[in-house]
Amino acid sequence: MTTETSPHPATPYVHGYSDTEAQRLGDQADTLAELLHAGTAYPGGSRVLEAGCGVGAQTAHLLAASPGVLLTAADVSAESLAQARARITAAAPTARVTWHHGDLHRLPFPDGAFDHVFVCFVLEHLPDPAAGLAALRRVLRPGGTITVIEGDHGSAFFHPETPAARRTVDHLVRLQAGAGGDALVGRRLHPLLTSAGFADVTVRPRTVYVDGGRPALVEGFTRRTFVPMVEAVRTEALAAGLTTPEDFDRGIADLRRAAEPGGTFHYTFFKAVAVNPR
Amino acid sequence: MTTETSPHPATPYVHGYSDTEAQRLGDQADTLAELLHAGTAYPGGSRVLEAGCGVGAQTAHLLAASPGVLLTAADVSAESLAQARARITAAAPTARVTWHHGDLHRLPFPDGAFDHVFVCFVLEHLPDPAAGLAALRRVLRPGGTITVIEGDHGSAFFHPETPAARRTVDHLVRLQAGAGGDALVGRRLHPLLTSAGFADVTVRPRTVYVDGGRPALVEGFTRRTFVPMVEAVRTEALAAGLTTPEDFDRGIADLRRAAEPGGTFHYTFFKAVAVNPR
Repeated sequence: MTTETSPHPATPYVHGYSDTEAQRLGDQADTLAELLHAGTAYPGGSRVLEAGCGVGAQTAHLLAASPGVLLTAADVSAESLAQARARITAAAPTARVTWHHGDLHRLPFPDGAFDHVFVCFVLEHLPDPAAGLAALRRVLRPGGTITVIEGDHGSAFFHPETPAARRTVDHLVRLQAGAGGDALVGRRLHPLLTSAGFADVTVRPRTVYVDGGRPALVEGFTRRTFVPMVEAVRTEALAAGLTTPEDFDRGIADLRRAAEPGGTFHYTFFKAVAVNPR
Repeated sequence: MTTETSPHPATPYVHGYSDTEAQRLGDQADTLAELLHAGTAYPGGSRVLEAGCGVGAQTAHLLAASPGVLLTAADVSAESLAQARARITAAAPTARVTWHHGDLHRLPFPDGAFDHVFVCFVLEHLPDPAAGLAALRRVLRPGGTITVIEGDHGSAFFHPETPAARRTVDHLVRLQAGAGGDALVGRRLHPLLTSAGFADVTVRPRTVYVDGGRPALVEGFTRRTFVPMVEAVRTEALAAGLTTPEDFDRGIADLRRAAEPGGTFHYTFFKAVAVNPR
């Protein structure tokens, strides 16, 4: 089932909607699934809302950990939602999922319609994440929980680290800020959830650390997740006058050295769980 | 017992040797003891070397976790060693400790004299940490382990974050580099240990994340460990022409906001364990 609400003028999705990006999101979700989803399992029959499901990269892992839930997966992009539906139909054909096309700020569901809300890599794209969280709290029953997972590009550091590599990461942060988002939102989860009226807010860092002793992460995270994410904003960064082709390409080449022998890479995600007070 | 080797021209200890600094080191060690020492317990009778014991802040926790070891605690500063000895005599009067005054690069012990080596917050002060590790490997028996714990100031990020606050942290990194050290050494532990000839190198991040839901860490880490560490280089940073009194003090004030309601703070230590190959 797919439902609709009229689209709301949303923040442009800074990473774009290409096939390459969909592949990147799939790689990222697979590599990070255990790190990000550990500890999140909802009882069978729970009414769960995934707000901002995108192409379904996290939806697949959510359903793998909680196969018995009644899931509503919502996204502002009809195209992403169609991809998510195709992905989940293939990966979890027996899952009970309602697909909803609409903006998470104006969901048409009654107050308290859900037992749990799950939001992953969504707040970073919202101009006012506290308002988004407040809108989600409305559809969460008193006593229900919200789980929020976000990254923080300011947590990225690596060896060797060069000024050019650091600048390329900063371009992504600036472009996302220019689009009304916040690539540093991870560090703000505790105050954001608190100010949106949630209680029992618990935030924990989930750190990806990569060195030569962890070849699967070198490939899955540094090479196939982080570097491509930064590289994907090349055209935008050039168009915005933030950099030159030479400087950007040198930054990407330097960043790739963190995936070579002797290199290391560090990135912190934050996972928050909070309760809608009774 | 205290032994001596002739002192070697060492890197100046960037944090200084004041009573305030000794207190800070004690606060830091107590707050972080569980995080840093978890997983490190040596069997009774093991010959353990703590290289760079300083004022004994970590020595106390090492002996608490491994009370039966035969510990040799070495430091290049006679004054620090005397403080360490006083501290341990009070805290662990039955511990079997040999105090050695000397440089870790030129320890007078035979090859393979120790079963285990423990090094905490020491490599960051060495001009050539790989050479220091190689010197320690010489006194470690084949099959023995080395444990290395270091911070990485590039891992520090916080909310709210201002340019002035970021600059004050960077001053500390630059001053330590100017003194021949590396405040970003944590991210380099894997390649350093590998290049020094150790095998089975395993490095794990140990992250301190602080928000309003963790008041003991707000006090013990953000307010009493990190901010004072940065603040302690005020005179040096001014003398080096890195900053003005106004800018430095604004940076410290901004940094303190991370310990106010709604603030968050993040710092990653790295803990490595490696083996001297047989």
